Amino acid sequence: MGTGGAVPSVRRGLPSMAIRTDSELILFDCGEGTQRQMILAGTGFPKQMKIFVTHMHGDHVLGIPGLLQTMSLLDRTEPVNMFGPAGLRRYLDSVVATVNFHLSFPIGISEVHEEGVLNHERNYQVEAAWADHSVPCLAYAFIERQRPGRFFPDRAERMGVPEGPLWSRLRSGEEIRLPDGRIVRPQDVMGPPRRGRKIVYSGDTRPSRSVVKLANGADLLIHDCSFNQDLADKARDDGHSTAADAAIVAKKAKVKQLALFHISARYEDTSILVKEASAIFPNILVASDLLQLDIPSPD
Amino acid sequence: MGTGGAVPSVRRGLPSMAIRTDSELILFDCGEGTQRQMILAGTGFPKQMKIFVTHMHGDHVLGIPGLLQTMSLLDRTEPVNMFGPAGLRRYLDSVVATVNFHLSFPIGISEVHEEGVLNHERNYQVEAAWADHSVPCLAYAFIERQRPGRFFPDRAERMGVPEGPLWSRLRSGEEIRLPDGRIVRPQDVMGPPRRGRKIVYSGDTRPSRSVVKLANGADLLIHDCSFNQDLADKARDDGHSTAADAAIVAKKAKVKQLALFHISARYEDTSILVKEASAIFPNILVASDLLQLDIPSPD
Repeated sequence: MGTGGAVPSVRRGLPSMAIRTDSELILFDCGEGTQRQMILAGTGFPKQMKIFVTHMHGDHVLGIPGLLQTMSLLDRTEPVNMFGPAGLRRYLDSVVATVNFHLSFPIGISEVHEEGVLNHERNYQVEAAWADHSVPCLAYAFIERQRPGRFFPDRAERMGVPEGPLWSRLRSGEEIRLPDGRIVRPQDVMGPPRRGRKIVYSGDTRPSRSVVKLANGADLLIHDCSFNQDLADKARDDGHSTAADAAIVAKKAKVKQLALFHISARYEDTSILVKEASAIFPNILVASDLLQLDIPSPD
Repeated sequence: MGTGGAVPSVRRGLPSMAIRTDSELILFDCGEGTQRQMILAGTGFPKQMKIFVTHMHGDHVLGIPGLLQTMSLLDRTEPVNMFGPAGLRRYLDSVVATVNFHLSFPIGISEVHEEGVLNHERNYQVEAAWADHSVPCLAYAFIERQRPGRFFPDRAERMGVPEGPLWSRLRSGEEIRLPDGRIVRPQDVMGPPRRGRKIVYSGDTRPSRSVVKLANGADLLIHDCSFNQDLADKARDDGHSTAADAAIVAKKAKVKQLALFHISARYEDTSILVKEASAIFPNILVASDLLQLDIPSPD
Protein backbone atom coordinates (compact mmCIF):
# COMPACT_ATOMS: atom_id res chain seq x y z
CA MET A 1 0.00 0.00 0.00
CA GLY A 2 2.74 2.41 1.04
CA THR A 3 6.46 1.74 0.76
CA GLY A 4 8.21 4.82 2.13
CA GLY A 5 10.13 5.45 5.30
CA ALA A 6 8.88 7.50 8.21
CA VAL A 7 8.45 10.63 6.07
CA PRO A 8 6.22 10.30 3.01
CA SER A 9 7.26 11.63 -0.38
CA VAL A 10 5.62 12.42 -3.69
CA ARG A 11 6.10 8.79 -4.76
CA ARG A 12 5.88 6.83 -1.52
CA GLY A 13 3.22 6.75 1.18
CA LEU A 14 3.67 5.54 4.72
CA PRO A 15 4.29 1.84 5.36
CA SER A 16 1.60 -0.74 4.85
CA MET A 17 1.54 -4.07 3.08
CA ALA A 18 -1.44 -6.32 2.40
CA ILE A 19 -1.82 -9.99 1.60
CA ARG A 20 -5.00 -10.82 -0.22
CA THR A 21 -6.07 -14.44 0.00
CA ASP A 22 -9.17 -15.92 -1.61
CA SER A 23 -11.30 -14.73 1.26
CA GLU A 24 -9.40 -12.27 3.36
CA LEU A 25 -7.31 -9.13 3.42
CA ILE A 26 -4.45 -9.17 5.90
CA LEU A 27 -2.75 -5.85 6.54
CA PHE A 28 0.74 -5.55 7.92
CA ASP A 29 1.21 -2.10 9.41
CA CYS A 30 -1.18 0.68 8.63
CA GLY A 31 0.55 4.02 8.16
CA GLU A 32 -1.38 7.21 7.60
CA GLY A 33 -3.21 7.08 4.27
CA THR A 34 -3.57 3.31 4.09
CA GLN A 35 -7.36 3.42 3.77
CA ARG A 36 -7.05 5.67 0.72
CA GLN A 37 -4.40 3.38 -0.79
CA MET A 38 -6.77 0.44 -0.25
CA ILE A 39 -9.38 2.30 -2.27
CA LEU A 40 -6.86 3.13 -4.99
CA ALA A 41 -5.61 -0.48 -5.03
CA GLY A 42 -9.15 -1.74 -5.37
CA THR A 43 -8.98 -4.03 -2.36
CA GLY A 44 -11.91 -2.29 -0.74
CA PHE A 45 -12.72 -3.35 2.81
CA PRO A 46 -13.45 -7.09 2.72
CA LYS A 47 -15.57 -8.78 5.34
CA GLN A 48 -12.63 -10.77 6.57
CA MET A 49 -9.76 -8.57 7.60
CA LYS A 50 -6.92 -8.68 10.10
CA ILE A 51 -4.23 -6.17 10.95
CA PHE A 52 -0.74 -7.02 12.18
CA VAL A 53 1.27 -4.10 13.55
CA THR A 54 5.05 -4.35 13.80
CA HIS A 55 5.66 -1.52 16.27
CA MET A 56 4.20 1.57 17.77
CA HIS A 57 5.94 4.26 15.75
CA GLY A 58 3.47 6.70 14.26
CA ASP A 59 4.32 6.00 10.64
CA HIS A 60 3.17 2.39 11.13
CA VAL A 61 -0.03 2.92 13.13
CA LEU A 62 -1.53 6.34 12.43
CA GLY A 63 -3.70 4.97 9.62
CA ILE A 64 -5.63 2.56 11.83
CA PRO A 65 -8.16 4.99 13.36
CA GLY A 66 -9.21 6.40 9.99
CA LEU A 67 -9.59 2.92 8.54
CA LEU A 68 -11.78 1.88 11.47
CA GLN A 69 -13.84 5.06 11.14
CA THR A 70 -14.37 4.63 7.41
CA MET A 71 -15.49 1.02 7.80
CA SER A 72 -17.87 2.16 10.54
CA LEU A 73 -19.32 4.83 8.26
CA LEU A 74 -19.83 2.04 5.72
CA ASP A 75 -21.78 0.14 8.42
CA ARG A 76 -19.36 -2.75 8.75
CA THR A 77 -20.54 -5.36 11.23
CA GLU A 78 -17.84 -8.02 10.88
CA PRO A 79 -15.08 -7.97 13.51
CA VAL A 80 -11.51 -6.90 12.83
CA ASN A 81 -8.77 -8.55 14.82
CA MET A 82 -5.50 -6.77 15.37
CA PHE A 83 -2.16 -8.00 16.63
CA GLY A 84 0.76 -5.89 17.70
CA PRO A 85 3.19 -5.07 20.46
CA ALA A 86 2.25 -3.76 23.90
CA GLY A 87 0.74 -0.31 23.65
CA LEU A 88 -1.55 -1.00 20.71
CA ARG A 89 -4.62 -1.31 22.90
CA ARG A 90 -3.90 1.85 24.87
CA TYR A 91 -3.36 3.79 21.66
CA LEU A 92 -6.59 2.65 20.03
CA ASP A 93 -8.61 3.06 23.23
CA SER A 94 -7.36 6.60 23.61
CA VAL A 95 -8.16 7.57 20.02
CA VAL A 96 -11.64 6.09 20.24
CA ALA A 97 -12.14 7.99 23.51
CA THR A 98 -10.79 11.36 22.37
CA VAL A 99 -12.02 11.57 18.78
CA ASN A 100 -15.78 11.48 18.29
CA PHE A 101 -15.77 7.91 17.18
CA HIS A 102 -18.50 5.38 16.71
CA LEU A 103 -17.36 1.85 15.96
CA SER A 104 -20.03 -0.16 14.16
CA PHE A 105 -18.19 -3.49 14.56
CA PRO A 106 -16.18 -5.30 17.22
CA ILE A 107 -12.43 -5.00 17.27
CA GLY A 108 -10.17 -7.53 18.88
CA ILE A 109 -6.73 -6.45 20.03
CA SER A 110 -4.11 -9.05 20.87
CA GLU A 111 -0.90 -7.68 22.26
CA VAL A 112 2.02 -9.90 21.32
CA HIS A 113 4.55 -10.48 24.08
CA GLU A 114 6.34 -13.56 22.78
CA GLU A 115 7.57 -14.98 19.52
CA GLY A 116 5.55 -17.77 17.98
CA VAL A 117 2.40 -18.61 16.08
CA LEU A 118 -0.32 -16.04 16.70
CA ASN A 119 -3.33 -17.59 15.04
CA HIS A 120 -4.35 -20.78 13.35
CA GLU A 121 -6.68 -20.24 10.43
CA ARG A 122 -8.01 -22.93 8.18
CA ASN A 123 -5.55 -22.12 5.42
CA TYR A 124 -2.69 -20.28 7.08
CA GLN A 125 -1.04 -19.13 10.24
CA VAL A 126 0.89 -16.02 11.14
CA GLU A 127 4.06 -16.33 13.15
CA ALA A 128 5.82 -13.46 14.91
CA ALA A 129 9.48 -12.99 15.75
CA TRP A 130 11.33 -10.07 17.29
CA ALA A 131 13.00 -7.74 14.87
CA ASP A 132 15.78 -5.39 15.99
CA HIS A 133 14.62 -1.78 16.00
CA SER A 134 14.83 1.20 18.37
CA VAL A 135 11.60 0.11 20.08
CA PRO A 136 10.03 -3.36 20.47
CA CYS A 137 9.25 -4.41 16.92
CA LEU A 138 7.87 -7.61 15.45
CA ALA A 139 8.48 -9.31 12.14
CA TYR A 140 5.68 -11.48 10.77
CA ALA A 141 5.53 -14.58 8.59
CA PHE A 142 2.36 -15.49 6.74
CA ILE A 143 2.58 -19.26 6.27
CA GLU A 144 0.05 -21.11 4.19
CA ARG A 145 -0.81 -24.60 5.32
CA GLN A 146 0.49 -27.58 3.43
CA ARG A 147 -1.87 -28.35 0.57
CA PRO A 148 -2.87 -31.82 -0.68
CA GLY A 149 -0.59 -33.29 -3.34
CA ARG A 150 -1.29 -33.14 -7.04
CA PHE A 151 -4.09 -35.51 -8.21
CA PHE A 152 -3.21 -37.90 -11.08
CA PRO A 153 -6.34 -38.86 -13.06
CA ASP A 154 -4.45 -41.59 -14.97
CA ARG A 155 -3.55 -43.37 -11.73
CA ALA A 156 -7.17 -43.18 -10.56
CA GLU A 157 -8.35 -44.61 -13.87
CA ARG A 158 -5.75 -47.35 -13.77
CA MET A 159 -7.02 -48.35 -10.33
CA GLY A 160 -10.58 -48.46 -11.66
CA VAL A 161 -11.92 -45.39 -9.86
CA PRO A 162 -14.59 -43.82 -12.08
CA GLU A 163 -14.47 -40.04 -12.59
CA GLY A 164 -16.99 -38.26 -10.38
CA PRO A 165 -17.70 -37.97 -6.66
CA LEU A 166 -15.12 -40.62 -5.75
CA TRP A 167 -12.37 -38.49 -7.29
CA SER A 168 -13.48 -35.50 -5.18
CA ARG A 169 -13.42 -37.60 -2.02
CA LEU A 170 -9.90 -38.84 -2.77
CA ARG A 171 -8.78 -35.28 -3.54
CA SER A 172 -10.07 -34.06 -0.21
CA GLY A 173 -8.05 -36.73 1.61
CA GLU A 174 -10.61 -39.51 2.14
CA GLU A 175 -10.06 -43.21 1.63
CA ILE A 176 -12.74 -44.74 -0.56
CA ARG A 177 -14.05 -48.27 -1.03
CA LEU A 178 -14.81 -49.42 -4.58
CA PRO A 179 -17.87 -51.60 -5.42
CA ASP A 180 -15.53 -54.63 -5.66
CA GLY A 181 -14.39 -54.04 -2.07
CA ARG A 182 -10.94 -52.67 -2.78
CA ILE A 183 -9.75 -49.68 -0.70
CA VAL A 184 -8.10 -46.79 -2.53
CA ARG A 185 -6.14 -44.32 -0.44
CA PRO A 186 -5.45 -40.69 -1.44
CA GLN A 187 -1.72 -41.37 -1.62
CA ASP A 188 -2.40 -44.04 -4.27
CA VAL A 189 -3.61 -41.44 -6.74
CA MET A 190 -1.95 -38.24 -5.51
CA GLY A 191 1.55 -36.87 -5.19
CA PRO A 192 3.10 -35.85 -1.88
CA PRO A 193 1.58 -32.91 0.00
CA ARG A 194 2.76 -29.56 -1.31
CA ARG A 195 4.01 -26.83 0.95
CA GLY A 196 2.03 -23.58 1.13
CA ARG A 197 3.37 -20.15 0.37
CA LYS A 198 5.37 -18.18 2.87
CA ILE A 199 5.60 -14.39 2.90
CA VAL A 200 7.67 -12.57 5.50
CA TYR A 201 7.49 -8.90 6.45
CA SER A 202 10.42 -7.65 8.49
CA GLY A 203 9.05 -4.44 9.96
CA ASP A 204 11.64 -1.78 10.79
CA THR A 205 14.80 -3.61 11.67
CA ARG A 206 18.53 -3.82 11.67
CA PRO A 207 19.75 -7.08 10.10
CA SER A 208 18.49 -9.66 12.58
CA ARG A 209 19.13 -13.33 13.21
CA SER A 210 15.57 -13.94 14.29
CA VAL A 211 14.30 -12.39 11.05
CA VAL A 212 16.66 -14.67 9.11
CA LYS A 213 15.22 -17.63 10.99
CA LEU A 214 11.63 -16.50 10.52
CA ALA A 215 12.20 -15.91 6.79
CA ASN A 216 13.84 -19.25 6.12
CA GLY A 217 12.81 -20.48 2.67
CA ALA A 218 10.17 -17.79 2.21
CA ASP A 219 8.74 -17.20 -1.25
CA LEU A 220 8.94 -13.47 -0.61
CA LEU A 221 10.75 -11.43 2.03
CA ILE A 222 9.70 -7.80 2.34
CA HIS A 223 12.54 -6.16 4.22
CA ASP A 224 13.48 -2.77 5.62
CA CYS A 225 15.78 -1.04 3.14
CA SER A 226 15.88 2.49 4.48
CA PHE A 227 19.29 3.48 3.18
CA ASN A 228 22.24 2.65 0.97
CA GLN A 229 25.74 1.88 2.16
CA ASP A 230 26.72 5.55 2.55
CA LEU A 231 24.33 5.78 5.47
CA ALA A 232 25.22 2.44 7.09
CA ASP A 233 26.03 4.16 10.39
CA LYS A 234 22.74 5.99 10.41
CA ALA A 235 20.96 2.70 9.68
CA ARG A 236 22.59 1.10 12.74
CA ASP A 237 21.88 4.12 14.94
CA ASP A 238 18.23 4.41 13.91
CA GLY A 239 17.49 0.69 13.89
CA HIS A 240 17.20 0.22 10.14
CA SER A 241 18.83 -1.76 7.34
CA THR A 242 20.77 -0.83 4.25
CA ALA A 243 20.14 -2.47 0.88
CA ALA A 244 23.14 -4.72 1.49
CA ASP A 245 21.84 -5.66 4.95
CA ALA A 246 18.51 -6.69 3.45
CA ALA A 247 20.25 -8.72 0.75
CA ILE A 248 22.41 -10.53 3.29
CA VAL A 249 19.34 -11.46 5.32
CA ALA A 250 17.63 -12.71 2.15
CA LYS A 251 20.68 -14.77 1.21
CA LYS A 252 21.07 -16.30 4.66
CA ALA A 253 17.37 -17.11 4.80
CA LYS A 254 17.47 -18.65 1.31
CA VAL A 255 14.33 -16.82 0.26
CA LYS A 256 13.08 -16.92 -3.32
CA GLN A 257 12.64 -13.19 -3.74
CA LEU A 258 13.45 -10.02 -1.79
CA ALA A 259 11.37 -6.86 -1.95
CA LEU A 260 13.15 -3.73 -0.77
CA PHE A 261 10.70 -1.76 1.41
CA HIS A 262 10.57 1.25 3.77
CA ILE A 263 12.72 3.29 1.45
CA SER A 264 13.84 6.70 2.65
CA ALA A 265 12.36 9.68 0.82
CA ARG A 266 15.90 10.71 -0.16
CA TYR A 267 16.05 7.95 -2.82
CA GLU A 268 14.03 9.32 -5.69
CA ASP A 269 16.26 7.17 -7.83
CA THR A 270 16.55 3.71 -6.27
CA SER A 271 19.18 2.33 -8.65
CA ILE A 272 21.91 2.60 -5.99
CA LEU A 273 19.80 0.38 -3.70
CA VAL A 274 19.27 -2.16 -6.47
CA LYS A 275 22.96 -2.15 -7.29
CA GLU A 276 24.09 -2.71 -3.71
CA ALA A 277 21.49 -5.38 -2.94
CA SER A 278 21.76 -7.34 -6.18
CA ALA A 279 25.54 -7.65 -5.80
CA ILE A 280 24.72 -9.91 -2.84
CA PHE A 281 21.34 -11.42 -3.67
CA PRO A 282 20.13 -11.49 -7.27
CA ASN A 283 16.37 -11.85 -7.10
CA ILE A 284 15.25 -8.48 -5.81
CA LEU A 285 12.66 -5.88 -6.60
CA VAL A 286 12.05 -2.40 -5.26
CA ALA A 287 8.59 -2.21 -3.76
CA SER A 288 6.48 0.66 -5.05
CA ASP A 289 3.18 1.99 -3.76
CA LEU A 290 0.20 -0.05 -5.00
CA LEU A 291 2.46 -2.67 -6.58
CA GLN A 292 0.66 -6.02 -6.78
CA LEU A 293 2.63 -9.25 -6.82
CA ASP A 294 1.18 -12.62 -7.55
CA ILE A 295 3.00 -15.24 -5.50
CA PRO A 296 2.48 -18.56 -7.32
CA SER A 297 1.78 -21.69 -5.30
CA PRO A 298 4.78 -24.03 -5.20
CA ASP A 299 4.25 -27.19 -7.25
CA MET B 1 -5.62 19.54 0.17
CA GLY B 2 -8.52 17.10 0.45
CA THR B 3 -12.09 17.81 -0.56
CA GLY B 4 -14.06 14.67 0.19
CA GLY B 5 -16.60 13.79 2.84
CA ALA B 6 -15.95 11.53 5.78
CA VAL B 7 -15.08 8.56 3.54
CA PRO B 8 -12.26 9.11 1.05
CA SER B 9 -12.54 8.05 -2.57
CA VAL B 10 -10.25 7.50 -5.53
CA ARG B 11 -10.54 11.19 -6.40
CA ARG B 12 -11.01 12.89 -3.04
CA GLY B 13 -8.97 12.76 0.13
CA LEU B 14 -10.15 13.72 3.60
CA PRO B 15 -10.92 17.35 4.37
CA SER B 16 -8.21 19.94 4.63
CA MET B 17 -7.81 23.40 3.15
CA ALA B 18 -4.77 25.66 3.28
CA ILE B 19 -4.26 29.37 2.84
CA ARG B 20 -0.77 30.32 1.80
CA THR B 21 0.20 33.91 2.49
CA ASP B 22 3.56 35.48 1.67
CA SER B 23 5.07 34.07 4.81
CA GLU B 24 2.78 31.46 6.29
CA LEU B 25 0.74 28.35 5.70
CA ILE B 26 -2.57 28.23 7.52
CA LEU B 27 -4.34 24.87 7.56
CA PHE B 28 -8.02 24.52 8.16
CA ASP B 29 -8.78 20.97 9.24
CA CYS B 30 -6.26 18.22 8.78
CA GLY B 31 -7.83 14.95 7.70
CA GLU B 32 -5.79 11.79 7.32
CA GLY B 33 -3.32 12.13 4.46
CA THR B 34 -2.95 15.92 4.64
CA GLN B 35 0.82 15.80 5.09
CA ARG B 36 1.16 13.80 1.89
CA GLN B 37 -1.13 16.21 0.04
CA MET B 38 1.05 19.09 1.27
CA ILE B 39 4.03 17.36 -0.29
CA LEU B 40 2.13 16.76 -3.53
CA ALA B 41 0.89 20.36 -3.55
CA GLY B 42 4.43 21.61 -3.05
CA THR B 43 3.62 23.69 0.02
CA GLY B 44 6.16 21.81 2.06
CA PHE B 45 6.21 22.60 5.78
CA PRO B 46 6.91 26.32 6.12
CA LYS B 47 8.45 27.79 9.25
CA GLN B 48 5.30 29.70 9.98
CA MET B 49 2.28 27.46 10.24
CA LYS B 50 -1.02 27.40 12.10
CA ILE B 51 -3.81 24.86 12.18
CA PHE B 52 -7.47 25.65 12.72
CA VAL B 53 -9.71 22.66 13.43
CA THR B 54 -13.46 22.90 12.91
CA HIS B 55 -14.55 19.92 14.98
CA MET B 56 -13.40 16.69 16.52
CA HIS B 57 -14.66 14.18 13.97
CA GLY B 58 -11.92 11.83 12.84
CA ASP B 59 -12.01 12.82 9.19
CA HIS B 60 -11.02 16.37 10.18
CA VAL B 61 -8.29 15.68 12.77
CA LEU B 62 -6.64 12.30 12.12
CA GLY B 63 -3.96 13.87 9.93
CA ILE B 64 -2.56 16.08 12.68
CA PRO B 65 -0.38 13.52 14.50
CA GLY B 66 1.37 12.36 11.33
CA LEU B 67 2.01 15.93 10.24
CA LEU B 68 3.54 16.73 13.63
CA GLN B 69 5.64 13.57 13.50
CA THR B 70 6.94 14.27 10.00
CA MET B 71 7.91 17.83 10.89
CA SER B 72 9.69 16.48 13.97
CA LEU B 73 11.60 13.98 11.84
CA LEU B 74 12.59 16.94 9.68
CA ASP B 75 13.92 18.63 12.85
CA ARG B 76 11.47 21.51 12.90
CA THR B 77 12.11 23.90 15.76
CA GLU B 78 9.50 26.61 15.06
CA PRO B 79 6.27 26.38 17.05
CA VAL B 80 2.92 25.38 15.57
CA ASN B 81 -0.19 26.92 17.09
CA MET B 82 -3.48 25.11 16.81
CA PHE B 83 -7.01 26.27 17.44
CA GLY B 84 -10.09 24.11 17.73
CA PRO B 85 -13.03 23.11 19.86
CA ALA B 86 -12.82 21.54 23.30
CA GLY B 87 -11.25 18.09 23.12
CA LEU B 88 -8.41 18.99 20.76
CA ARG B 89 -5.86 19.14 23.57
CA ARG B 90 -6.95 15.83 25.09
CA TYR B 91 -6.79 14.13 21.69
CA LEU B 92 -3.30 15.36 20.86
CA ASP B 93 -1.99 14.71 24.36
CA SER B 94 -3.27 11.13 24.20
CA VAL B 95 -1.73 10.44 20.79
CA VAL B 96 1.62 11.86 21.84
CA ALA B 97 1.44 9.73 24.99
CA THR B 98 0.38 6.46 23.34
CA VAL B 99 2.33 6.52 20.08
CA ASN B 100 6.11 6.63 20.39
CA PHE B 101 6.31 10.26 19.58
CA HIS B 102 9.05 12.80 19.87
CA LEU B 103 8.07 16.39 19.17
CA SER B 104 11.03 18.50 18.13
CA PHE B 105 9.13 21.80 18.38
CA PRO B 106 6.59 23.43 20.71
CA ILE B 107 2.91 23.15 19.94
CA GLY B 108 0.35 25.57 21.25
CA ILE B 109 -3.24 24.43 21.59
CA SER B 110 -6.00 26.99 22.06
CA GLU B 111 -9.43 25.54 22.64
CA VAL B 112 -12.10 27.86 21.30
CA HIS B 113 -15.15 28.25 23.51
CA GLU B 114 -16.64 31.43 22.10
CA GLU B 115 -17.20 33.10 18.78
CA GLY B 116 -14.91 35.98 17.91
CA VAL B 117 -11.45 36.95 16.75
CA LEU B 118 -8.88 34.33 17.73
CA ASN B 119 -5.62 35.96 16.84
CA HIS B 120 -4.27 39.27 15.63
CA GLU B 121 -1.40 38.91 13.23
CA ARG B 122 0.36 41.74 11.49
CA ASN B 123 -1.50 41.15 8.23
CA TYR B 124 -4.60 39.25 9.14
CA GLN B 125 -6.87 37.88 11.80
CA VAL B 126 -8.93 34.71 12.04
CA GLU B 127 -12.44 34.89 13.39
CA ALA B 128 -14.51 31.92 14.52
CA ALA B 129 -18.26 31.42 14.56
CA TRP B 130 -20.37 28.42 15.46
CA ALA B 131 -21.48 26.27 12.57
CA ASP B 132 -24.41 23.87 12.92
CA HIS B 133 -23.25 20.25 12.89
CA SER B 134 -23.92 17.10 14.93
CA VAL B 135 -21.13 18.04 17.35
CA PRO B 136 -19.71 21.46 18.32
CA CYS B 137 -18.21 22.77 15.09
CA LEU B 138 -16.57 26.06 14.20
CA ALA B 139 -16.49 28.01 10.96
CA TYR B 140 -13.49 30.25 10.37
CA ALA B 141 -12.92 33.49 8.51
CA PHE B 142 -9.45 34.52 7.43
CA ILE B 143 -9.60 38.32 7.19
CA GLU B 144 -6.70 40.28 5.81
CA ARG B 145 -6.12 43.69 7.33
CA GLN B 146 -7.01 46.79 5.40
CA ARG B 147 -4.13 47.73 3.14
CA PRO B 148 -2.89 51.25 2.32
CA GLY B 149 -4.56 52.87 -0.69
CA ARG B 150 -3.08 52.90 -4.16
CA PHE B 151 -0.11 55.30 -4.59
CA PHE B 152 -0.37 57.83 -7.45
CA PRO B 153 3.12 58.85 -8.67
CA ASP B 154 1.68 61.68 -10.79
CA ARG B 155 0.10 63.31 -7.73
CA ALA B 156 3.38 63.04 -5.85
CA GLU B 157 5.24 64.62 -8.74
CA ARG B 158 2.67 67.38 -9.06
CA MET B 159 3.17 68.20 -5.39
CA GLY B 160 6.91 68.34 -5.94
CA VAL B 161 7.85 65.20 -4.02
CA PRO B 162 10.92 63.70 -5.71
CA GLU B 163 10.93 59.96 -6.41
CA GLY B 164 12.94 58.05 -3.81
CA PRO B 165 12.84 57.59 -0.05
CA LEU B 166 10.12 60.20 0.43
CA TRP B 167 7.76 58.15 -1.74
CA SER B 168 8.41 55.09 0.38
CA ARG B 169 7.67 57.00 3.56
CA LEU B 170 4.41 58.31 2.15
CA ARG B 171 3.47 54.81 0.98
CA SER B 172 4.02 53.40 4.45
CA GLY B 173 1.65 56.00 5.92
CA GLU B 174 4.03 58.74 7.12
CA GLU B 175 3.59 62.46 6.70
CA ILE B 176 6.67 64.11 5.20
CA ARG B 177 8.04 67.65 5.18
CA LEU B 178 9.51 68.96 1.94
CA PRO B 179 12.66 71.15 1.88
CA ASP B 180 10.42 74.20 1.27
CA GLY B 181 8.55 73.47 4.50
CA ARG B 182 5.35 72.13 3.00
CA ILE B 183 3.76 69.09 4.66
CA VAL B 184 2.57 66.27 2.37
CA ARG B 185 0.22 63.71 3.88
CA PRO B 186 -0.24 60.14 2.58
CA GLN B 187 -3.84 60.84 1.62
CA ASP B 188 -2.62 63.64 -0.68
CA VAL B 189 -0.92 61.13 -2.96
CA MET B 190 -2.79 57.88 -2.25
CA GLY B 191 -6.27 56.55 -2.77
CA PRO B 192 -8.48 55.39 0.09
CA PRO B 193 -7.38 52.34 2.12
CA ARG B 194 -8.24 49.06 0.40
CA ARG B 195 -9.93 46.25 2.21
CA GLY B 196 -8.02 43.00 2.61
CA ARG B 197 -9.15 39.63 1.34
CA LYS B 198 -11.62 37.51 3.23
CA ILE B 199 -11.83 33.73 2.93
CA VAL B 200 -14.37 31.74 4.91
CA TYR B 201 -14.36 28.01 5.59
CA SER B 202 -17.63 26.62 6.88
CA GLY B 203 -16.57 23.30 8.34
CA ASP B 204 -19.26 20.62 8.43
CA THR B 205 -22.54 22.40 8.77
CA ARG B 206 -26.20 22.66 8.02
CA PRO B 207 -27.09 26.02 6.48
CA SER B 208 -26.39 28.41 9.35
CA ARG B 209 -27.15 32.05 10.10
CA SER B 210 -23.91 32.51 11.94
CA VAL B 211 -21.98 31.21 8.93
CA VAL B 212 -23.92 33.65 6.73
CA LYS B 213 -22.92 36.45 9.07
CA LEU B 214 -19.30 35.33 9.27
CA ALA B 215 -19.09 35.02 5.48
CA ASN B 216 -20.59 38.41 4.73
CA GLY B 217 -18.86 39.89 1.66
CA ALA B 218 -16.16 37.21 1.55
CA ASP B 219 -14.05 36.85 -1.56
CA LEU B 220 -14.35 33.10 -1.25
CA LEU B 221 -16.65 30.89 0.79
CA ILE B 222 -15.65 27.23 1.04
CA HIS B 223 -18.81 25.49 2.16
CA ASP B 224 -19.99 22.01 3.08
CA CYS B 225 -21.72 20.48 0.05
CA SER B 226 -22.07 16.88 1.08
CA PHE B 227 -25.13 16.00 -0.98
CA ASN B 228 -27.55 17.02 -3.67
CA GLN B 229 -31.23 17.73 -3.17
CA ASP B 230 -32.26 14.05 -3.27
CA LEU B 231 -30.51 13.59 0.07
CA ALA B 232 -31.74 16.80 1.72
CA ASP B 233 -33.21 14.84 4.63
CA LYS B 234 -29.96 12.99 5.19
CA ALA B 235 -28.11 16.30 5.09
CA ARG B 236 -30.34 17.70 7.86
CA ASP B 237 -30.07 14.51 9.91
CA ASP B 238 -26.29 14.26 9.65
CA GLY B 239 -25.60 17.98 10.05
CA HIS B 240 -24.54 18.72 6.50
CA SER B 241 -25.58 20.92 3.57
CA THR B 242 -26.82 20.24 0.09
CA ALA B 243 -25.52 22.11 -2.93
CA ALA B 244 -28.60 24.34 -2.78
CA ASP B 245 -28.05 25.01 0.92
CA ALA B 246 -24.49 26.11 0.24
CA ALA B 247 -25.65 28.35 -2.62
CA ILE B 248 -28.32 30.01 -0.44
CA VAL B 249 -25.72 30.75 2.24
CA ALA B 250 -23.41 32.21 -0.42
CA LYS B 251 -26.20 34.36 -1.81
CA LYS B 252 -27.32 35.64 1.59
CA ALA B 253 -23.73 36.40 2.55
CA LYS B 254 -23.13 38.20 -0.77
CA VAL B 255 -19.82 36.43 -1.27
CA LYS B 256 -17.86 36.79 -4.50
CA GLN B 257 -17.32 33.09 -5.09
CA LEU B 258 -18.49 29.79 -3.60
CA ALA B 259 -16.39 26.62 -3.56
CA LEU B 260 -18.36 23.42 -3.01
CA PHE B 261 -16.40 21.29 -0.55
CA HIS B 262 -16.73 18.13 1.58
CA ILE B 263 -18.35 16.26 -1.29
CA SER B 264 -19.66 12.78 -0.61
CA ALA B 265 -17.81 9.94 -2.30
CA ARG B 266 -21.04 9.01 -4.08
CA TYR B 267 -20.68 11.97 -6.49
CA GLU B 268 -18.10 10.81 -8.96
CA ASP B 269 -19.85 13.12 -11.36
CA THR B 270 -20.48 16.45 -9.64
CA SER B 271 -22.58 18.02 -12.40
CA ILE B 272 -25.79 17.58 -10.39
CA LEU B 273 -24.22 19.60 -7.55
CA VAL B 274 -23.15 22.34 -9.95
CA LYS B 275 -26.59 22.43 -11.51
CA GLU B 276 -28.43 22.72 -8.22
CA ALA B 277 -26.08 25.31 -6.73
CA SER B 278 -25.69 27.50 -9.80
CA ALA B 279 -29.45 27.83 -10.18
CA ILE B 280 -29.28 29.84 -6.95
CA PHE B 281 -25.82 31.39 -6.96
CA PRO B 282 -23.90 31.73 -10.21
CA ASN B 283 -20.25 32.04 -9.24
CA ILE B 284 -19.40 28.56 -8.01
CA LEU B 285 -16.69 26.01 -8.43
CA VAL B 286 -16.34 22.44 -7.27
CA ALA B 287 -13.26 22.11 -5.10
CA SER B 288 -10.91 19.32 -6.14
CA ASP B 289 -7.93 17.88 -4.30
CA LEU B 290 -4.78 19.98 -4.74
CA LEU B 291 -6.69 22.73 -6.56
CA GLN B 292 -4.91 26.05 -6.14
CA LEU B 293 -6.86 29.29 -6.33
CA ASP B 294 -5.30 32.71 -6.51
CA ILE B 295 -7.54 35.18 -4.69
CA PRO B 296 -6.69 38.60 -6.09
CA SER B 297 -6.47 41.57 -3.76
CA PRO B 298 -9.44 43.91 -4.12
CA ASP B 299 -8.58 47.19 -5.79
